[in-house]
Amino acid sequence: MSVYTPVSESELAAWLGSYSVGRLESCEPIQAGIENTNYFVTTTQGRYVLTLFERLPAEELPFYVNLMAHLARHGIPCPAPIADLSDQYLQRLNGKPAALVTRLAGESVERPAAAECAELGALLARMHLAARSYASYLENPRGPKWWRFAAKAVASFLDQPKRSLLENELAFQAGHRFPDLPRGPVHADLFRDNALFEHGRICGVVDFYFAGVDTFLYDVAVCANDWCLRDPAGSLELDASRTAALLAAYHAVRPFGPLERAAWPIMLRAAALRFWLSRLYDFHRPRPGMMVHAHDPGHFGEILELRVRVAAPWMD
Amino acid sequence: MSVYTPVSESELAAWLGSYSVGRLESCEPIQAGIENTNYFVTTTQGRYVLTLFERLPAEELPFYVNLMAHLARHGIPCPAPIADLSDQYLQRLNGKPAALVTRLAGESVERPAAAECAELGALLARMHLAARSYASYLENPRGPKWWRFAAKAVASFLDQPKRSLLENELAFQAGHRFPDLPRGPVHADLFRDNALFEHGRICGVVDFYFAGVDTFLYDVAVCANDWCLRDPAGSLELDASRTAALLAAYHAVRPFGPLERAAWPIMLRAAALRFWLSRLYDFHRPRPGMMVHAHDPGHFGEILELRVRVAAPWMD
Repeated sequence: MSVYTPVSESELAAWLGSYSVGRLESCEPIQAGIENTNYFVTTTQGRYVLTLFERLPAEELPFYVNLMAHLARHGIPCPAPIADLSDQYLQRLNGKPAALVTRLAGESVERPAAAECAELGALLARMHLAARSYASYLENPRGPKWWRFAAKAVASFLDQPKRSLLENELAFQAGHRFPDLPRGPVHADLFRDNALFEHGRICGVVDFYFAGVDTFLYDVAVCANDWCLRDPAGSLELDASRTAALLAAYHAVRPFGPLERAAWPIMLRAAALRFWLSRLYDFHRPRPGMMVHAHDPGHFGEILELRVRVAAPWMD
Repeated sequence: MSVYTPVSESELAAWLGSYSVGRLESCEPIQAGIENTNYFVTTTQGRYVLTLFERLPAEELPFYVNLMAHLARHGIPCPAPIADLSDQYLQRLNGKPAALVTRLAGESVERPAAAECAELGALLARMHLAARSYASYLENPRGPKWWRFAAKAVASFLDQPKRSLLENELAFQAGHRFPDLPRGPVHADLFRDNALFEHGRICGVVDFYFAGVDTFLYDVAVCANDWCLRDPAGSLELDASRTAALLAAYHAVRPFGPLERAAWPIMLRAAALRFWLSRLYDFHRPRPGMMVHAHDPGHFGEILELRVRVAAPWMD
């Protein structure tokens, strides 16, 4: 569970007095999520999510909430931060930085078909195009610098074959940087549980708290490694038809260039490496007060090993 | 009808290419509205309203669209302008300034009861509070300066009693300005057809193209003169219980001060005067190319005459 900071109804009702969203009708803690405290909040005006930021660096928060506001006003279906009466998106509540955002309708899809992968691909491309005019800069906080830090912290917990895989991949990626690929603010964590669907249409993208500036192709690779597996609980190879659906729908909105085509297999490996490292880190180096069971790190280790060994499908 | 500038599906589809709202699915002209050309637009992403501005001064448009954007990000249920890929709310289409805004759900209520008047009052107060932090300034374009201009243009069409009513009221209002009342950006045209309800809840306020900076109380008076009539087709006196419901719900969110209490009867007269004048003007001085039948000017002449003669109810 993930309520680190309790908020009572009376505290919340008083806090909402500095917003234009009407009177509190109900609030309910959200059990999902591992980094922040979240509540569903219903007022006479509408439905919202309240987030209390537990461990994100305070100086990074404006990048995330302003990015959501930027995307929302471009028509991207993401949570829109609500400004308070002093015109601020970020406030404090019970000692923590806090934000109120709109709550989106829809449900995530556990087993996406090609049609849902195409919906995701088209929205991802629209999001990347809309994000290009976002002026703030935050380097992807889980990029290559962080990989090296995390690798040092977890290497001693790995057996020899895994440690070799990690060292070889870090060396390989260091030799394959892509300064010329199109880049901009990316979500960087758009797993199936961060997308909402209704009637087969994608109608929401949530949880922008791992966003940062990186290559757009990296964002696509993060998606493919989660949405396009043949069987997440079994075969971790990429399903060719779902991968093609994701890529073709993206390409129809923001066409891939030849450099991106060439970088695709390497980017899939980078995306696998990033989540393997963060899961290893959360598993072996849990932070004090973290109330969740860490994900199994083995999953992304296997994906990485497979992406190194097996050629990745493209959209043709 | 009100489509002054036709837009074909192919023109619109191409134009939408510079937005992040997906592909055009359908568009349909909106017959209501007299000042602009409007279309309902449906894309793979959602439902929007496209407005082509036919006669509003181009330099005023940023005030209106940025006000809507400001209110929307404060949680006020109003149309949210969509920014295009160059991060602009205002574009051009077929030679006219144009904006794409979100389309709200809900229906207007022709015969509001006290409960709907209370919903309106609470939202109006929230809107005024949220608008205070809006930095742009546009004097109410239908304020006292415009009254004098319009009065000169229509006086010769009035019979002697009506001309006296007009002249006396202009002189009375000139002697009763309220520089000390709370003021800020107001909607200034929040008639029943500009509010949307669903399940008894107000869920939308639309048409901000008469907005400007004026006293908040003026905005309330405009509402009362339309929402709280005993019978819009018969007795134009204010219904005491609906007026009290409107005012009390507003007061619960933004309390009225004693100056506002004292100004209320005068503000109701000012609001009646403004709409009497604009309807006289549209009736007697129709602008070339205006395709609508003007409203009957007599309605607001009678309201003004009545507000001068009969004491207005307050919330107690």
